[in-house]
Amino acid sequence: MSVDHEVPIEFVIELAKQAGEMIHKQVYRRDKNITSKISLGDLVTETDVAVEQTMMKAIRERYPNHEFLCEESASKNQRVTDAPTWIIDPIDGTTNFVHTFPFCCISIAFCRDKIPLIGVVFNPLLNEMFVGQKGMGATLNGEPIKTSGVTDVSQSLVSTGFGMNTLRALDNPKLDPEQRQPLLHRKAQILKYTGKLIEKVHDIRRIGSAALDICHVAMGRNDVYFEMGPYEWDIAAGLCILREAGGVDGDFTLEQPCPLHNRRIVAAATQQLYESFVKDILSDIDLA
Amino acid sequence: MSVDHEVPIEFVIELAKQAGEMIHKQVYRRDKNITSKISLGDLVTETDVAVEQTMMKAIRERYPNHEFLCEESASKNQRVTDAPTWIIDPIDGTTNFVHTFPFCCISIAFCRDKIPLIGVVFNPLLNEMFVGQKGMGATLNGEPIKTSGVTDVSQSLVSTGFGMNTLRALDNPKLDPEQRQPLLHRKAQILKYTGKLIEKVHDIRRIGSAALDICHVAMGRNDVYFEMGPYEWDIAAGLCILREAGGVDGDFTLEQPCPLHNRRIVAAATQQLYESFVKDILSDIDLA
Repeated sequence: MSVDHEVPIEFVIELAKQAGEMIHKQVYRRDKNITSKISLGDLVTETDVAVEQTMMKAIRERYPNHEFLCEESASKNQRVTDAPTWIIDPIDGTTNFVHTFPFCCISIAFCRDKIPLIGVVFNPLLNEMFVGQKGMGATLNGEPIKTSGVTDVSQSLVSTGFGMNTLRALDNPKLDPEQRQPLLHRKAQILKYTGKLIEKVHDIRRIGSAALDICHVAMGRNDVYFEMGPYEWDIAAGLCILREAGGVDGDFTLEQPCPLHNRRIVAAATQQLYESFVKDILSDIDLA
Repeated sequence: MSVDHEVPIEFVIELAKQAGEMIHKQVYRRDKNITSKISLGDLVTETDVAVEQTMMKAIRERYPNHEFLCEESASKNQRVTDAPTWIIDPIDGTTNFVHTFPFCCISIAFCRDKIPLIGVVFNPLLNEMFVGQKGMGATLNGEPIKTSGVTDVSQSLVSTGFGMNTLRALDNPKLDPEQRQPLLHRKAQILKYTGKLIEKVHDIRRIGSAALDICHVAMGRNDVYFEMGPYEWDIAAGLCILREAGGVDGDFTLEQPCPLHNRRIVAAATQQLYESFVKDILSDIDLA
């Protein structure tokens, strides 16, 4: 059974399992063959591309009219439309993949009208399969999951990132002053909210996979995830799972739910925690 | 066979396995019964105490004259002596234990003359058993391990913490100004090196277990771990494993190896990486 008459959930889970096998085979290979480095923080491996192409081929054969928004093949500035669309990150956490750090995953979302109806996130290293279907609940390895229920910022275990893909450019002494200025501003804002986190939350985690961060909030492993920077393919599947697990999402300015193209996301266990977190940690962060 | 004629490695591994079973049984229980909260960041559970007592009992029966330095039972300001001593953390990563975040472990070191001769660190959630014996190499689940060999700071995946156990006191408006001042200073230093990390290293990880952080450097999953704050029981076993895997350790001022009682530790994949990391990230951190 599926939330969408056209796309059975079993088909999506099978896609994720096949991709998981490809990743699992490669991840313990010593000599990973890195074909292209967009930046040090965004290592793209042969496996990344191969997994995406395999999944797109299988989907195209079955649904020739569906659209795609996928990490490796998306055109620059491509945005999700109202058409039936598959949003895929073949490996979220490629740095972890390269380092055999056990948090990388396949993230597959199916959307209509820009709304994720199906979300499947599979971590083949921990064998954790997260599934969400709009209106039908969320599961981890077939068992229903829900968020922690934490409402208080001081009790919250918070996962985040530090936007290092772009900020590392600051270490280049030849960086143009006009490019340097906005990066310095962004860095100052990150240090500002890091200072608040240090005082106000229970603890910080940084695992390096946005999709898994959101799923971990959905299952109660973390209470909040927030970050500047993720793309649609990092968050679409996770948000479907989170919402079905009782969690909430929004941006840094209390806009809810978080638009898929919004690159400033907060995912929280509860509405109360989301609002307090934005107020306590993010309210005077200047993102202009 | 063992590096120590008196203590066979099999005995220590068996201790870790038994403790791992106790932890594994408890970690997926929904209703964990937290008996004492020293601070929010240092949750102490019944299991923590039970695991330590079980291990100490088994060791005392076999070695009635050995000494102990264990997280739950150590007296305040107790320090390791030259006597044969077991340094144990029954659960490193208790916050992770409570949140079912899959990085918690048992850490067991056996020392003479303040030198760790045997180190065993077991993560029962990922079933990863790290073993090191001075002069005899290091293994993960029986297979030899070595560090990544990374020598360049810009290529390094760095694990750290933010000293949140103590700094969270800053959020208390009634905190005495004399207590506030050193905490503010410490926070400023942490933000100072965080700002450098953001510009200079490949990426940051924060998993919340010092013992596992060091083992991850030993096996090449991370390239550097550094932190202000860990105790002897957090690092003794890990350092034995790290050194046998080809890694190096020291403090924030290039003193090598890191004294067990030194609460500012850097563990790195290579000597060159250690020296560059201290120079690039920690050199003007004021810890007076």
